[in-house]
Amino acid sequence: MALIVQKFGGTSVGSPARVLAVADLVAARRAEGQGVAVVVSAMGDSTDRLLDLARQVSATPAARELDALLATGEMISTSLIAMALSDRGWPARSYNALQLPVTTTGSHGRARITAIESACLRADLAAGIVPVVAGFQGRGPDGSITTIGRGGSDTSAVALAVAIGADECQILTDVDGVYTADPRVVPDARRLDSVSFEEMLELAGQGSRVLHLRSVEFAARYDIRLRVLSSFRPGPGTLIAKEDPDVEAPVVSGIAFNRDEAEITLTGLPDRPGIAFEVLRPAAAAEIEVDMIVVNAPRDGCVDFTFTVHRDDYQRVLELMQTVAASHPGSAITGSDRVAKLAVVGSGMRSHAGVAARLFETLAQEKINVRLVSTSEIKIAVLVEEDDIERAVRALHGAYGLAGK
Amino acid sequence: MALIVQKFGGTSVGSPARVLAVADLVAARRAEGQGVAVVVSAMGDSTDRLLDLARQVSATPAARELDALLATGEMISTSLIAMALSDRGWPARSYNALQLPVTTTGSHGRARITAIESACLRADLAAGIVPVVAGFQGRGPDGSITTIGRGGSDTSAVALAVAIGADECQILTDVDGVYTADPRVVPDARRLDSVSFEEMLELAGQGSRVLHLRSVEFAARYDIRLRVLSSFRPGPGTLIAKEDPDVEAPVVSGIAFNRDEAEITLTGLPDRPGIAFEVLRPAAAAEIEVDMIVVNAPRDGCVDFTFTVHRDDYQRVLELMQTVAASHPGSAITGSDRVAKLAVVGSGMRSHAGVAARLFETLAQEKINVRLVSTSEIKIAVLVEEDDIERAVRALHGAYGLAGK
Repeated sequence: MALIVQKFGGTSVGSPARVLAVADLVAARRAEGQGVAVVVSAMGDSTDRLLDLARQVSATPAARELDALLATGEMISTSLIAMALSDRGWPARSYNALQLPVTTTGSHGRARITAIESACLRADLAAGIVPVVAGFQGRGPDGSITTIGRGGSDTSAVALAVAIGADECQILTDVDGVYTADPRVVPDARRLDSVSFEEMLELAGQGSRVLHLRSVEFAARYDIRLRVLSSFRPGPGTLIAKEDPDVEAPVVSGIAFNRDEAEITLTGLPDRPGIAFEVLRPAAAAEIEVDMIVVNAPRDGCVDFTFTVHRDDYQRVLELMQTVAASHPGSAITGSDRVAKLAVVGSGMRSHAGVAARLFETLAQEKINVRLVSTSEIKIAVLVEEDDIERAVRALHGAYGLAGK
Repeated sequence: MALIVQKFGGTSVGSPARVLAVADLVAARRAEGQGVAVVVSAMGDSTDRLLDLARQVSATPAARELDALLATGEMISTSLIAMALSDRGWPARSYNALQLPVTTTGSHGRARITAIESACLRADLAAGIVPVVAGFQGRGPDGSITTIGRGGSDTSAVALAVAIGADECQILTDVDGVYTADPRVVPDARRLDSVSFEEMLELAGQGSRVLHLRSVEFAARYDIRLRVLSSFRPGPGTLIAKEDPDVEAPVVSGIAFNRDEAEITLTGLPDRPGIAFEVLRPAAAAEIEVDMIVVNAPRDGCVDFTFTVHRDDYQRVLELMQTVAASHPGSAITGSDRVAKLAVVGSGMRSHAGVAARLFETLAQEKINVRLVSTSEIKIAVLVEEDDIERAVRALHGAYGLAGK
């Protein structure tokens, strides 16, 4: 008997009617003889409503209390799904993070799961009971409720799959799989039957919002088969798994893009050891994540230093850089938060040349200026003007022959 | 330094603005140097909204899951109050029942508290932190969330006061104390400065909805001073405590009444041992609570048997009694669910005669028919037509001189 974890996101359980639809999906898997453990997010916009409630009470809510508040959203979903499953003749039990427990680090709002105690889950599964577990939450070292950040229910699901030794972790959502590009931007984008962990990491990291990045890392580390599929209509979805060495990987699997970018350049810095650290230290101290980093070749003893951050951090980083620039006479700051990034991703790039050349050729034909480039073994990412991003993605999707047949 | 428990009911925390007002009240006690532990109910109508959600998913929600669902209401309140207190410079921590834990029996929907682990509460109080505890909920023997029934947050508060050895348990609500009678019915009813546990038990049991019956029993058993006061306007409220032997108790402290009554009579039953059990057994088996019971003197070898139940149970009891009557030819069933009960309560009745005579005299003058009578040491209760109840309460309030001066 196969054992699967099924994770349902907020839109999948957005209403009482959707809760019943989800219970039907789980019941169908049980009727086929599969063992199922369910992980669930909060209903629809309920997390936003709880956040709004907190804001009406406090401008800066205490982190411990905000986590305790938000965690109630997932608890509500678990109870409702367990009720609906029981009504369908499939006994079920809801669990919040304190009950298992799901232990995490103590960083409220972005805790990391350190262990899931699986004793009662295994007992339930052995007895034919469907455990329904609240995603997104954990228990910190001092017994407080923690949350693992937005989108974290995907990670909860993979961690649960690891804990109970599931054969597959299914992420049921409002899209029916991973696409060669965002279908809203590229109308002839094609659903991928499968994609490797490495490719999915690059796609997720570049802003393909189907799956939370950390959940893919987690699945790759423990070699858990992930499957993204729709909770609204039937279909095989996209399998995300270890690369199959017997199958030739596609040169390019997909194109991801992300608008939430901002670019900062410091010009005229002295070319000496430690200058990169001096620039990046204030951002690191402020816990701001820096993505692409480029230092040009030195000229007249000076270098220019460019990096990108999330658009929300742009103003803050500009302020931090004022201090850096102030200690280097002749240096200056430029930047833009009207930039966007795209990434061409494919495991086959490892053994194929010409992918980068095709990219630059295509963008040149489209007269799209490339501001920054960064590469990995299976990815080429470029930063362009935000206004050019959709045109760039469509042109590259065609150039690499990714369209559905 | 005095240590108090403050319990806030649903209307007291009915909105974000009310949450802030409650935080102000607690902060004021802390500023006076008092130690405070808070117990809180779910916000306003949120329990009803959760119940409605459950009904949209299941006609008969699994009891374990319904408890888990409803318990989220109180968790939300605790987090919001802890946030607001922290903002005011008074550190606070929310706790749900699993965290302390509050252990209970396993009967979902009406569990009984068996213990409250007070270690972290005591540590918080010693460190100047206000623990904010979710009322109404507990952890059953198997780790499931339980609820202790509607109104049960009062009981949570008293149990918490016992656990931490509080000097007083304050129930803050939308009324400013216990009155000689319901002021909506008797306009010149007077707030009582104090009332004994025994009197309060009779008043609560007879339908005075200020306090939950079980919480008064609990407070009496552990000799915890209870105080009912308003969270909406300042005032001393009503102290509920052990009777002070040095103070002469008032003959009549107050008059309670309750409309939710129904009366059933079986006539023509054989006068033989065991007949009362035969009549009451089906009701007990169906877990229907029987209140007043009267058997008249036998005549011609037959007796009439009358008892009262909650109006909601009336149709069900009538059906159960058909079976009893069927096995006794010549017996018959009559009844009414248009009856109401009032109770005159006062510790001083123990040493004063004439209270009953005054009652019957007053009702006779008002031409109000008394259908049933039941008495205790400190109470006389009578069943009357529902249409007469308000007139009866007003007449007796005047006859016993209870009006404010």
